[in-house]
Amino acid sequence: MVLASIYLESINDFLSLLTVFGTVALDTTRTPFRTEARILGGAATFASLSSSIFTQTSIVAVVGSDLPAEHVRALQAKGINTKGIVTIEGGKTFHYDSSFDYDLSNRTTNKTELGVVAGFNPVIPDEYAKSEYVYLANNDPKQNIKILQHFDSPKMVMCDTIEFWINGSREDVEKMIGMTDGVVINDNEARLLCKEANLSKCAKKIMSWGSKFAIIKKGEHGAVLFTNEGAVFPSAAFFLDEIVDPTGAGDSFAGGFLGHIARKGRSDFAAMKEAVIYGNVMGSFAVEDFGVKRLLAITKDDVEERYRKYCNLVQF
Amino acid sequence: MVLASIYLESINDFLSLLTVFGTVALDTTRTPFRTEARILGGAATFASLSSSIFTQTSIVAVVGSDLPAEHVRALQAKGINTKGIVTIEGGKTFHYDSSFDYDLSNRTTNKTELGVVAGFNPVIPDEYAKSEYVYLANNDPKQNIKILQHFDSPKMVMCDTIEFWINGSREDVEKMIGMTDGVVINDNEARLLCKEANLSKCAKKIMSWGSKFAIIKKGEHGAVLFTNEGAVFPSAAFFLDEIVDPTGAGDSFAGGFLGHIARKGRSDFAAMKEAVIYGNVMGSFAVEDFGVKRLLAITKDDVEERYRKYCNLVQF
Repeated sequence: MVLASIYLESINDFLSLLTVFGTVALDTTRTPFRTEARILGGAATFASLSSSIFTQTSIVAVVGSDLPAEHVRALQAKGINTKGIVTIEGGKTFHYDSSFDYDLSNRTTNKTELGVVAGFNPVIPDEYAKSEYVYLANNDPKQNIKILQHFDSPKMVMCDTIEFWINGSREDVEKMIGMTDGVVINDNEARLLCKEANLSKCAKKIMSWGSKFAIIKKGEHGAVLFTNEGAVFPSAAFFLDEIVDPTGAGDSFAGGFLGHIARKGRSDFAAMKEAVIYGNVMGSFAVEDFGVKRLLAITKDDVEERYRKYCNLVQF
Repeated sequence: MVLASIYLESINDFLSLLTVFGTVALDTTRTPFRTEARILGGAATFASLSSSIFTQTSIVAVVGSDLPAEHVRALQAKGINTKGIVTIEGGKTFHYDSSFDYDLSNRTTNKTELGVVAGFNPVIPDEYAKSEYVYLANNDPKQNIKILQHFDSPKMVMCDTIEFWINGSREDVEKMIGMTDGVVINDNEARLLCKEANLSKCAKKIMSWGSKFAIIKKGEHGAVLFTNEGAVFPSAAFFLDEIVDPTGAGDSFAGGFLGHIARKGRSDFAAMKEAVIYGNVMGSFAVEDFGVKRLLAITKDDVEERYRKYCNLVQF
């Protein structure tokens, strides 16, 4: 009986424990030191590569037939279920062209080509419906709300959002947040969304719309977790001597956070604090090389080793 | 014999264990919420009030006869030795008028009136000469270099510097750093000084000029300690629901850091990490009210309580 139960569990795990919905994109990333054109990127790519270190992960995205097949194979090679990636024949994959300034802290958008992402009607393969953990990346909040209906009863739904939707679809953003358990968002976008400078007040406003926790990401300065029970957990970022490409740090954080929660099967404050540290750890790997190169290269052991290093680093 | 030794030690302590050299100023501080005109401020005021919580502190500064006597009495009431405050009859006290933006993170200088600070030739009372710990605030680096000659053999000298001196007296700044044990500096000023975006590289460059450690302050994002043995300690700032006036946070940090080192009598990495946390704690008090109001109000117990709160806050 026990064996059978384990067997069934592992089947479920294989089917889908954590689902990520977001973009699989081609990025052109320009830093003062190097430019890489049309490399694999996108929120769902970073988040799923990150969470796949921790738990069985599935991905939902739409791409054009211009996306090199090797990119999807790279995700599959990491154990990610890619049945939810819809390919539109003759369509163009989302393309994001941006430049970083000298200290890699400010990004300028040069070009955003939505391609097949515009008007995508997200559906999920049946085997994703039992996912217990769902990460809705910075998609159109209407799409995020829609896709939620396809899941049976996830234990934790977490979303992100960005300036584009805050400015254009504020009501939908608030509605979406009300349907999630948690929000993970950049500091500047939290301020824009909440029309409030103080991050603690931003978090309270976000939670007043219905989410149970809010994580405000501060880039190289780490992240702060707030819960609707009034608990707060500020964390420093893992310290790196050199950052190569900040792209994807936030989504890698989200994947690491939710991945650890899924692996642990618990979402109490202690588990969430650990998850924040795993989020920082995954973000720190993401920025060590262009695009997803580093996330593709690391193993679970690398992640655990860096988690231990982080613990030593911040201990006093 | 033992009693006599303790007696002598306490006399020495009373004379001066830690000396702070910097401005005692009148600040006009404007936030979007309130303006306070000509209140007590200045780097040496914040740093000495902060370090006085930890250890016997003396102050060196020059003021005009327009400085209300109650301000010096307020420092004395906290046990600070003010014999090193030189009053120039008919002279004007340094006056700094600045405005903070909406999120209190950017400050604009409206007016800087140097008054008696310009051309001050710093000397110290004889009883300061045996100070074991010296903090040279953001003064003219030439003045900082000069005053150092008056101390017998301090165990630790720490300095700060600002954009004005980096732009105008870069060589003196580098020379001054070479004569100190440690530098405490804002992130943006470190970048300006070192012509380098990466903070780790900035710290290495600063230490290449001769200091043994560098602390880079990141405002609400905490601080990072680097040592010339390659050790790094990033720390989050203490989390506050509300910030009233960010003025003086950096100097309060410096006072708390050096004060704890002086109290502990040790400067190994473990002691320096604790000192960084005490620095964060003192910075967090400073910003809770306008000017030095909060630093004047707190006790040693308040500081220890917040240190414990900090430990709980960042623990995972």
